[in-house]
Amino acid sequence: MHTFEELSKEFQKRFQKQHFPTHPESLYEPADYFIRIGGKRIRPVMCLMGNELFGEIKDDAWDAANAIELFHNFTLIHDDIMDKAPLRRGMQTVHEKFGEPVALLAGDVMLVIAYEYLSNIDVTYIRKIVRLFNATAKQVCEGQQIDVDFERRETVSFQDYLEMIELKTSVLLAASLRMGAILGGAGDGNQDHLYRFGKNLGLAFQIQDDLLDAFGDPRKFGKQVGGDILMNKKTFLLIRAREVSSGQQKKEINELTNSNSPDKIERMISIYRHCGVEDWAKSLKAEFVDKAFRHLEEIAVLSSRKNSLRHLAEFLVNREI
Amino acid sequence: MHTFEELSKEFQKRFQKQHFPTHPESLYEPADYFIRIGGKRIRPVMCLMGNELFGEIKDDAWDAANAIELFHNFTLIHDDIMDKAPLRRGMQTVHEKFGEPVALLAGDVMLVIAYEYLSNIDVTYIRKIVRLFNATAKQVCEGQQIDVDFERRETVSFQDYLEMIELKTSVLLAASLRMGAILGGAGDGNQDHLYRFGKNLGLAFQIQDDLLDAFGDPRKFGKQVGGDILMNKKTFLLIRAREVSSGQQKKEINELTNSNSPDKIERMISIYRHCGVEDWAKSLKAEFVDKAFRHLEEIAVLSSRKNSLRHLAEFLVNREI
Repeated sequence: MHTFEELSKEFQKRFQKQHFPTHPESLYEPADYFIRIGGKRIRPVMCLMGNELFGEIKDDAWDAANAIELFHNFTLIHDDIMDKAPLRRGMQTVHEKFGEPVALLAGDVMLVIAYEYLSNIDVTYIRKIVRLFNATAKQVCEGQQIDVDFERRETVSFQDYLEMIELKTSVLLAASLRMGAILGGAGDGNQDHLYRFGKNLGLAFQIQDDLLDAFGDPRKFGKQVGGDILMNKKTFLLIRAREVSSGQQKKEINELTNSNSPDKIERMISIYRHCGVEDWAKSLKAEFVDKAFRHLEEIAVLSSRKNSLRHLAEFLVNREI
Repeated sequence: MHTFEELSKEFQKRFQKQHFPTHPESLYEPADYFIRIGGKRIRPVMCLMGNELFGEIKDDAWDAANAIELFHNFTLIHDDIMDKAPLRRGMQTVHEKFGEPVALLAGDVMLVIAYEYLSNIDVTYIRKIVRLFNATAKQVCEGQQIDVDFERRETVSFQDYLEMIELKTSVLLAASLRMGAILGGAGDGNQDHLYRFGKNLGLAFQIQDDLLDAFGDPRKFGKQVGGDILMNKKTFLLIRAREVSSGQQKKEINELTNSNSPDKIERMISIYRHCGVEDWAKSLKAEFVDKAFRHLEEIAVLSSRKNSLRHLAEFLVNREI
């Protein structure tokens, strides 16, 4: 059994290899540039961990892991176009550096190459894996579309936000684990519990993301605290604050989201504090973590085999960066 | 055995069905809108014809045909974004009607749904089909990228243009036939000849396209004659004219491509005529058609089974619309 760090290091080493042909360079150099920007490689490593839960890591699991990471990068390149984002992890985005048509095509071809990795999978599992991958990819597109739609909406309900996060973020974490499990020969019941573990973990992960933006330690966080507030992003925090705030606070929230005053972040955080949003979010996160762990416990393998997943989960939902 | 028209009608009927979920409507309604704009459905029908060449049409061939047509539509939606095209077949393009983020995502999800159809294919053939589909999809992206690159280049050589057309247009026609052949149980040799038939046919098809733009009959053509000239599109005709023209003509070509004078089309066509570009293109087309037909003859099935493909080929390279 390996830790997340060990698998991450090994995956990173293997993922360094050339995924793309050299010609035309105008297409493949931008694609290569983007995947070398880096990232935590959480999803592919979850696939490997899901696989190792049921035995030695299979060759096929590395193919699936490559496919998952390429898919994730494809979504980031296209999301960056939609968001008109100039930077990603401190580096220029693909459309910013190479132009929008190139970014569009580099994303497209990356998705196709993800399917190339899937085509290597043993014929016993290929249909199951491709179907799960397809279903998940559709959901991620749906989640992104709903997120795009949110931008034009005045308010978003808690339920709608939850659905969006589930589609845009959670299902890919869940499916990564499940693909590993499928390739490890796990039964449907175990697969299902692992999937639900991943889905609930994904929701807790997003809550932590939203929390860090407002209440993170600026010395550790790395990004600007309050970035979501500045962009009027509908987060768990803002949605909750709108729901529970008093009339006067509601008015102030509306004013703040329509203004760019220099104390916007500070004032919004103060409302969050008055509305008890931080504690609420923490207890919501704990609920999802609890649910996730209950599903993890239900998986019929030796408890000690689950340690790496437990540690990863703890890290993801408590991280300060 | 069926004619192209019969298969086209039957495919059209089956393709009418709902390919997309209903939620979120903001994603799937635009996707559905676009595939209902129509089109000649040449590629999926070629898959069916490639299949019927070797026996009764298999269920799997219909899945492959759906995948191919969805893939083709995905490329059109994304190409239209890159070209900033307002219209497609006289109707508003997806990005024009619904905005660019929606068009991007509608294209993405359409590609994923193409893979959903491929996932239904019998396990005997699934890996072969997915690999051919992937290889072709990559080539189409590469061809589109090279085409995008051409726009910023002053001149393009005949060889470069040929490579671009092969990637952007020909290989999908060729692969459509081959997928049908694979699913019909054809041997590698027959598959290969059919593929080469399609590839050469695709090149001839593009020459006819370029020819029609300049020399088509305006009463039959449907589009504005000279559209490529107006847009300074590097076509077989322009590339040839640049190669064989005299010094004075070269100067005039350069002037014309830098101007928007009202007689631009007329004057360029006149240069084409003086340079013998029309006859050259027709004889180049005939060469590709010959090559295509030689490969068709090499396929080891009863000659009478090839009649529909012969008729389709004649239509595609001689069409006036």
